[in-house]
Parts: sequence; C-alpha cells; structure tokens
Amino acid sequence: MRAIEGGVTAAQGFEAAGIEAAVKYENRRDMAIVYSRVPCKAAGVFTSNVVKAAPVLWDKEVVKHSPYVRAAVINTGIANAATGKQGYAYCKQTAEKAAELLGISADAVLVASTGVIGNQLPIERILAGVERLAAEKTDTVEAASAAAEAIMTTDTVSKQAAVQFEIGSKTVTLGGMCKGSGMIHPNMCTMLGFITTDIAISKELLQEALREDVVDTFNMISVDGDTSTNDTLMVLANGLAGNAEITTKNEDYEKFRQALNFVNTTLAKKIAGDGEGATALFEAKVIHAATKQDARTLSRSVISSNLCKAAIFGHDANFGRFLCALGYAGVDFDPEKIELYFENEEKSLLIYKDGAAVDYSEEEATQILSSPEVRVLVDMHMGDAEAAAWGCDLSYDYVKINADYRS
Amino acid sequence: MRAIEGGVTAAQGFEAAGIEAAVKYENRRDMAIVYSRVPCKAAGVFTSNVVKAAPVLWDKEVVKHSPYVRAAVINTGIANAATGKQGYAYCKQTAEKAAELLGISADAVLVASTGVIGNQLPIERILAGVERLAAEKTDTVEAASAAAEAIMTTDTVSKQAAVQFEIGSKTVTLGGMCKGSGMIHPNMCTMLGFITTDIAISKELLQEALREDVVDTFNMISVDGDTSTNDTLMVLANGLAGNAEITTKNEDYEKFRQALNFVNTTLAKKIAGDGEGATALFEAKVIHAATKQDARTLSRSVISSNLCKAAIFGHDANFGRFLCALGYAGVDFDPEKIELYFENEEKSLLIYKDGAAVDYSEEEATQILSSPEVRVLVDMHMGDAEAAAWGCDLSYDYVKINADYRS
Repeated sequence: MRAIEGGVTAAQGFEAAGIEAAVKYENRRDMAIVYSRVPCKAAGVFTSNVVKAAPVLWDKEVVKHSPYVRAAVINTGIANAATGKQGYAYCKQTAEKAAELLGISADAVLVASTGVIGNQLPIERILAGVERLAAEKTDTVEAASAAAEAIMTTDTVSKQAAVQFEIGSKTVTLGGMCKGSGMIHPNMCTMLGFITTDIAISKELLQEALREDVVDTFNMISVDGDTSTNDTLMVLANGLAGNAEITTKNEDYEKFRQALNFVNTTLAKKIAGDGEGATALFEAKVIHAATKQDARTLSRSVISSNLCKAAIFGHDANFGRFLCALGYAGVDFDPEKIELYFENEEKSLLIYKDGAAVDYSEEEATQILSSPEVRVLVDMHMGDAEAAAWGCDLSYDYVKINADYRS
Repeated sequence: MRAIEGGVTAAQGFEAAGIEAAVKYENRRDMAIVYSRVPCKAAGVFTSNVVKAAPVLWDKEVVKHSPYVRAAVINTGIANAATGKQGYAYCKQTAEKAAELLGISADAVLVASTGVIGNQLPIERILAGVERLAAEKTDTVEAASAAAEAIMTTDTVSKQAAVQFEIGSKTVTLGGMCKGSGMIHPNMCTMLGFITTDIAISKELLQEALREDVVDTFNMISVDGDTSTNDTLMVLANGLAGNAEITTKNEDYEKFRQALNFVNTTLAKKIAGDGEGATALFEAKVIHAATKQDARTLSRSVISSNLCKAAIFGHDANFGRFLCALGYAGVDFDPEKIELYFENEEKSLLIYKDGAAVDYSEEEATQILSSPEVRVLVDMHMGDAEAAAWGCDLSYDYVKINADYRS
C-alpha cells in the first residue's frame, strides 16, 4: 500500500467538479459533484443525532434501497437541517435535477449539505449549480481539489487523501475528501466525507468495512463535543480495477480494510488538526487498558475536555486536568497505577507516576506542548488494549468563529 | 419560608472565619473554617470522578463513620488532588491540628481543598492558617462573608444564600456558601458547597434530602463539561432550633426539603452565572417531556454545548444549534413536534415550530439574547415532565482564564 496524490478522482472512472454557486457566500466554491461513469456499490454511515438533515434522510434511503449509486451532489453554506417538509422537497428536487442531466435515475443520486442549520436552500441557485456541475465534471486531480474546496465551511484547508495497492495483478485505488472544523464530535461518523474506489467488492462487505473502520477513525475525533445533524461518510466502489469481486473476508478484504483505515485516519486527523481556531493537533493515546472500549473512552474524554484543550493552547503542563478528564470518563482505574507522558515527534517526557508528579522539567514540558502536534500518552498498566483519539486546542479564535457564525 | 441575608453563620450555633494564609497567592483570603458549638449531623455528596482529591477521601470516611461533625477547614489555591500518600497525610494532619486547637476529635473535622491539581500543600502555612482560623472564628455575618470569599478560586463574586421557616413555634434557619467557576460539570454534586442549619433531623433523612435535591440543583449546572476531582457538598445540622427531631417524611420534612431546594438552587445558579469568563446566565428549560429524566438530559445537553454557549455570547439567534444539542442528547423525539422559544425576564419569542423556523423578528431575538439572563424554552409536547439546567456563555475570557491558569 502506498499513499498517492489526489482525492475522489484518483480511482478509475470517477469524475468531480467544484464551482461557485453563491448558495450563501460570494466568491468561493460552494457546490461539488462526485460522479462515476459506471454504477457503484454504496455504503454510508450517518449522524446519530435525532435531528437529521433532509439529505441525511434521503441518503439513508438511497444506500438502503437503491441497487446502485452514480453521483453525489454537495453544497456548503446551508445545512438543510431543521427545514421540515420543504427542506426534504428541495433535497429531492436537487437529486431529480442531477438525474435528469446525467441520464440516470434520481435514486442513484446522493445529496449532502453543510452550513447553517434552520435556513431553507436557495433552490434556484442550487439547481443552476447542478447544471454547471454536470457540465464541468472531469477526472482530473484539479477537479478533485476543486470539489474538496467546494465542500469547506470554516475549514482553513481542504482535506484529501488517496492510496493504491495491488490485488493479484490489478492495481486498486482508493481516494477521498472530507470537510469539518466545528460541530465535530462524530457519533457514527463525521461531518461530510466521500471516499471513491475502483475495487470490486460486495455491498455487504463494503458497508461492514466502513462501519467497523469509523469506530477507530472518524468516531475518535472531537473539536467541540457537538454531534452534527449532517454527519455523513460515504464510500462508492465502482469495480473498474478489475479484481475478482471480494465476497468473503479473505486476504484481499484485509488489504482493502488497511487502505480504508489509512485514508480514514488521514482524513480524520486532518479534520481534528483543522478544528475551528486550532493552533495544534492534540492526540491522546491510551495504552495497556483493560479493554479496547475503555481505551477509546479514556482517550476521547481527554481530547474532548475544554480544560485540557485550553492547557494545550496555553502550552501549560497542567497535567492534573488530564488526570481529571481520565477520571470522569466513566472507566474505573487506580490513579496510583497509571503513568502520564507529554510527547511530540521527538521527545517523550514522563510527568506523573505512583499517584503524584515526578520531578520533570517545566521547560521541557512547555517546549513539547508548543509543538504543532502534541500527544498525551497514558499507560494504564491494566491490560493489552490501546486506542488513540484526535482533537485540537481551544483558542480565542474558536469563540470568535462561533460567537457570530451566521453573519 | 423567607430568604434572609447571610450564609454559614445564619443558623444558631455556627461560627466561621476567612483569612489570608498565602497557600498559593498573596493578598487574598484563601483559608476558611466553619464551626459548630455543638455536635452536628452531617450529610455529604461527592465527586464521581475516579481521581478523587485527598480531602474527598477523608470526608467520605467522616460522613460515613463519625458519630458527629464539629468543623470544616477549607483552603483554596491547591486542590490536594493527584498528590498520592503525601497528600492524604497532609489532609489528616490538617484535621488533627484543628481538632487539637478546638478540643474535639479529628474525625469530627471535615477538610476541603480547591485549586491546582497535582501540587502538594505548603503544610506549614496550612497549619499556621488553622491556628488563626481557630482563634478568629465568630458567629457574625461578616465572618460568613469572609469565609465565602476565602473559598473562591477564579470566582468573581462570593456566593451565599439563607432562608428561615417555622416548624411549630420554632424558627429554623438554613444558610450556605459555595464556590465554583471553572471545571464545573457536577456529577453527584458541585465544586465546594457548605450548608449549615439548626434544624433537628435524623442523619438518614438529612443525607436523603441532600442526595435527592442535588439531582435537580447542583447536578443541573455546567460551565465547561469537566467534572472536578474535588466536588463536595456538605450539610451540617446542629439541632439548636429546638424543633422536635424529624425522623419521618412528614410535613416538617417537606418544609426542610423546600428550604434546602431554595438554598441549593440559588447557590447553583450563582455558580452557573459566574462561570469562567461568563457574560450571561444561560438557562435551558424543557417542558412537557415524556419523563423527568428525559427533561433533565435534554436541558443539560443544551447548556453544555459549546456552540450554543458561543451563540449566546455572540447574541446570535442561531437556533439550529439548540435543536442540534437536543438531537444528540440521547433522548428520542420527533423534531417536527417540538417548539423552541428564546426568553428573558420580560419576553418570550417563538422561534421554531412544525419542523422549521417561524417568521420571527431577528431584532427581537438579538435583544432577548443580549440579556444578562437568557432562557431557551423547549416544549416537547410528549408528556408532563419538566426540568431546568443552568450554564453560561462561552467567551474569549474563558479561554484566557484557562490557557494559563497556573501562572
């Protein structure tokens, strides 16, 4: 398996486009399309929020009942959530327009929206945007980048990843893009993510691979503890790589799982590191936990804590806050048994052991906490399970961005 | 029942003091004592955090096993949490010193600490402080105020409340103080709170009244989602009011419950409104929920959301965030059935109904959200249960205060 450049057009047979449609803001790309020249198996995971956006309701039906998927139309600016029957009708109209232009059926078109909750879509602009997307889509790297830009909201950078690997003599490619910066605390999956691949695989195994993988990737990131109404992660597989279709959990399936895990982890960390107002990627890694679920719960608790996040922003080795966040996670442990380290790419510094602080250097700790990627490593000394979670620091800019997001 | 001036010295037989002991900071009160001239029944609720501060471990033993309590010694600046065996020894030494000076037994002395986690107490200064507290304590209003000031950390105002009511011909008084501003997301109870009363009541009913009441008072506030290592709420009852001891859940017990609820609600709201960096008290009230627990869960979810809190700070009627926070609370409901209002003391404005925004005035909404006390009212249309939760907005100053708390 090797990482390559590119995103949703990296795999064979996929096209994309990203355009300025003035959905809410002028002078920025805000609508995108992902298109496959041939029918795709589709798998998806969606928000667990009771208040689901109209496109989430639409896509769940498509993934469940449609024989195949051919395209996804995405807009940013307005989330089409809390918009009632009118919002669902607009979503359906968007899919129907794309279907008509692309010569496919409406139930082969996924729709996704992100942005302000509660406003109705400007449907005329959306439909005009769909016309241009259908006309402009191509299979270039530039088209994938334009699409990745077009789905951004408060993101400061676009987010793509792609890998290739071999199954027998066939080269399989998997690429994806995602967006997300605020309202990030996925439960089932994250904001918007689209993965395309030319692998041949059964729909059941595609869905199972996705469902299993998000537990340790997109579900392990948090920016602010708010689970969105629009969280959607889709994988489209069109089979053009020409490998023998994967229908059992064989060696080929494992290769696919590894590739999917690499792309999902890469994209998820990009979201965490680009959290609203973030100055650092903040990782919590828990090792030697009693169970995998304990390790996940503990690491998520640390990266979700406002006080830990503010300490990272301040480069302040206030380790008590990290112990505190471990303590209220809901996992039982003996505080006298655990060890806590601050780490960056170069150094690992022991801070706490045997129930109290060790005699560490404040200077070294501050230096580590000033890195662009900071890790807190916790050794539970209870078992063999481990997990990592990713978040970011809490800065003035997070408040600034969110105190008046709509204006 | 009537609200009166005062705090922990309002009830008969209680004395207090608050002094400058230089535990961590100069030129501010940082140690307090609460003392009863006669033995008290004691009840307490404590943090559910696995990492418990040394004084929490000490106090749990005292409440469980000691026949009575006579005093509580409190310091701010250092939390005496994550301090291992040494920390527990210092806590015990503090109680023993107070016991010696007051002529009582050490197991009748409660200890409480709040401040930075992970540092050891400067035990010589603590013991010197205990000497002065034992000498200076009096039963005046000024002494109660000095004690309430001495337990503050990042609090901007001290927090006291007191009420009186009659049982037969006897006047019963109940007064209290608390502190808390950051790391506020109580689970079992909040930061530090001390209630004193001269009522005569059995220890069992005192504990039961406290345990039941915190569920709808201190456990319904949140500043930042972080459950502290030191949360402690104690009630001391010395019986000096002279009422017939309450030993069953009779009418007198109900009067006491009402008085306790008033004092706890008042103190809890003071903590929420004085949240670190707060510019407004932010209440979420959920009515017509299917169950009381649903109403609690939903209202807590709203006041705990960073995005809702930031919207309040920005006076931004971004109602979608409130729906979003209701949606991920973990309670099932139909988004098309609920109604959402923004309210202040004077006005109630309907914002959302039948699954979409109504045609409300943005100007009026902004005006309401600019009030010092803002309420979001949610009508679930599912049943008869209701609950309220209290928090505050999320401001630049929250980040400022917490990015470098230790320096």
